[in-house]
Amino acid sequence: MKIDPAEHRRESYVMHMAIPTRWNDYDLLGHVNNVLYNRYVEITVLELVKRAGVNWLDDHVIPFAAEVCVKFLRPLRFAEHVDTALRVGKLGNTSVVYEVALFMPNEDEPSAVAHFVHVFVDRASERPVPIPAPVRGVFERYSA
Amino acid sequence: MKIDPAEHRRESYVMHMAIPTRWNDYDLLGHVNNVLYNRYVEITVLELVKRAGVNWLDDHVIPFAAEVCVKFLRPLRFAEHVDTALRVGKLGNTSVVYEVALFMPNEDEPSAVAHFVHVFVDRASERPVPIPAPVRGVFERYSA
Amino acid sequence: MKIDPAEHRRESYVMHMAIPTRWNDYDLLGHVNNVLYNRYVEITVLELVKRAGVNWLDDHVIPFAAEVCVKFLRPLRFAEHVDTALRVGKLGNTSVVYEVALFMPNEDEPSAVAHFVHVFVDRASERPVPIPAPVRGVFERYSA
Amino acid sequence: MKIDPAEHRRESYVMHMAIPTRWNDYDLLGHVNNVLYNRYVEITVLELVKRAGVNWLDDHVIPFAAEVCVKFLRPLRFAEHVDTALRVGKLGNTSVVYEVALFMPNEDEPSAVAHFVHVFVDRASERPVPIPAPVRGVFERYSA
Repeated sequence: MKIDPAEHRRESYVMHMAIPTRWNDYDLLGHVNNVLYNRYVEITVLELVKRAGVNWLDDHVIPFAAEVCVKFLRPLRFAEHVDTALRVGKLGNTSVVYEVALFMPNEDEPSAVAHFVHVFVDRASERPVPIPAPVRGVFERYSA
Repeated sequence: MKIDPAEHRRESYVMHMAIPTRWNDYDLLGHVNNVLYNRYVEITVLELVKRAGVNWLDDHVIPFAAEVCVKFLRPLRFAEHVDTALRVGKLGNTSVVYEVALFMPNEDEPSAVAHFVHVFVDRASERPVPIPAPVRGVFERYSA
Repeated sequence: MKIDPAEHRRESYVMHMAIPTRWNDYDLLGHVNNVLYNRYVEITVLELVKRAGVNWLDDHVIPFAAEVCVKFLRPLRFAEHVDTALRVGKLGNTSVVYEVALFMPNEDEPSAVAHFVHVFVDRASERPVPIPAPVRGVFERYSA
Repeated sequence: MKIDPAEHRRESYVMHMAIPTRWNDYDLLGHVNNVLYNRYVEITVLELVKRAGVNWLDDHVIPFAAEVCVKFLRPLRFAEHVDTALRVGKLGNTSVVYEVALFMPNEDEPSAVAHFVHVFVDRASERPVPIPAPVRGVFERYSA
């Protein structure tokens, strides 16, 4: 579970977002609830999926979540927003691994790092199929 | 990411819960939203932490989440409740790994499997310390 | 905004539920977040709608929320579950008013009282239509 | 429950926000879940409370929610953000009524209108006390 901070500085990522927090994202202890880290990862991944042109309701080929892992490095304390950063870590034939980091505003070392795996499937059969070329093209531009 | 179903049948876990779903746990596609899998894992882990006697607001030593990973095997479709199961997978000096599985009612193969790592820390210093003996004793009883 | 407690004791309601709380239902101040009161009201109303036989995905006539009001009387503090109670307060031709109360376990005076209005509409036109007779029959049985 | 649209156009409100939606704000039917309307109202109200200088964790006098009502006029469909608008409707000695409207982007008639009542209380006794003068001064500037 060792993390090398040098590999997770803000500038080592390609896409950056500032996600406004909501009052109820915080728990009794005054930290962002751990599950919300996954929410911020989802928001960040879905932003790239949108930029890649995926239409969730109409496309024949859509991504299914296969795996998500989050390493919690230090608490996200009360703040107006959380900064997130994403890069495409591994781009396979039918799957893609996104690497995501979460930062407190004004901090350069992440509070958490995550990876999230999407497998592209045929909507009807739910079987893996190759990532459509236009989507792949966008993912390549966000590769580390 | 290969999962051996034989290692994740219901009877291979020690603690079992039925978690009522909420309308908004489901997304546009009619599946449980991926982030909610983490919510169900959290609910399950917190139930064991409660049984272990941890008092979040008063204890000097409390657990901090260190890592969570979820593998999504098949969608959780609309249902009254989700069944979860937990076993303690690895019990270290200052940390514990919980293994959790999520099941559709009436299914014996999991829809997702997860692990979740707690590190016990001194509340003031936020540095790791040994798991208190009474807590450890309970964790041992839930070991696989 | 005056509430007569005598009108809102547990026994003055017809349907009763115990809703397990989730860790993140609570906020920084240790109370149930105000928005979650609406979640518990929704869970309670949807339970009656289910008992009334409404099929959200297939029925031609479905209920749309028209209005919800919650009066917060005292905080819901940390507890395993929240008790809710419901009665049908007013049953019109195309609409129904549910009255809901939220209780701490072991308390007889409510922490909040609410009303929630459903208007039944044609799914396609989204125009109000009469409440189907079988649904109305169930609502009558839950009237105060 | 009749609403006069002329009273709820965007320009009749004083404070305006654009709140990014999250994937899970939407339900099975493709609409924003009704409870999330309350979340957007909360976010909007808390923004004004912040502008009014309230410090939730340290102030001796803090606001408690007393009542919230939402009228649902038309569904909030899938969009990048929801626009909200707020004005102070009634400013009493110990309480304030905020009026809030929710809009689809590019629409001028609201999808929902709400009011939300805060009562200011002494933190220790939880009894109503006058709204502190600096807070009141800000509320006056946001009055309709």
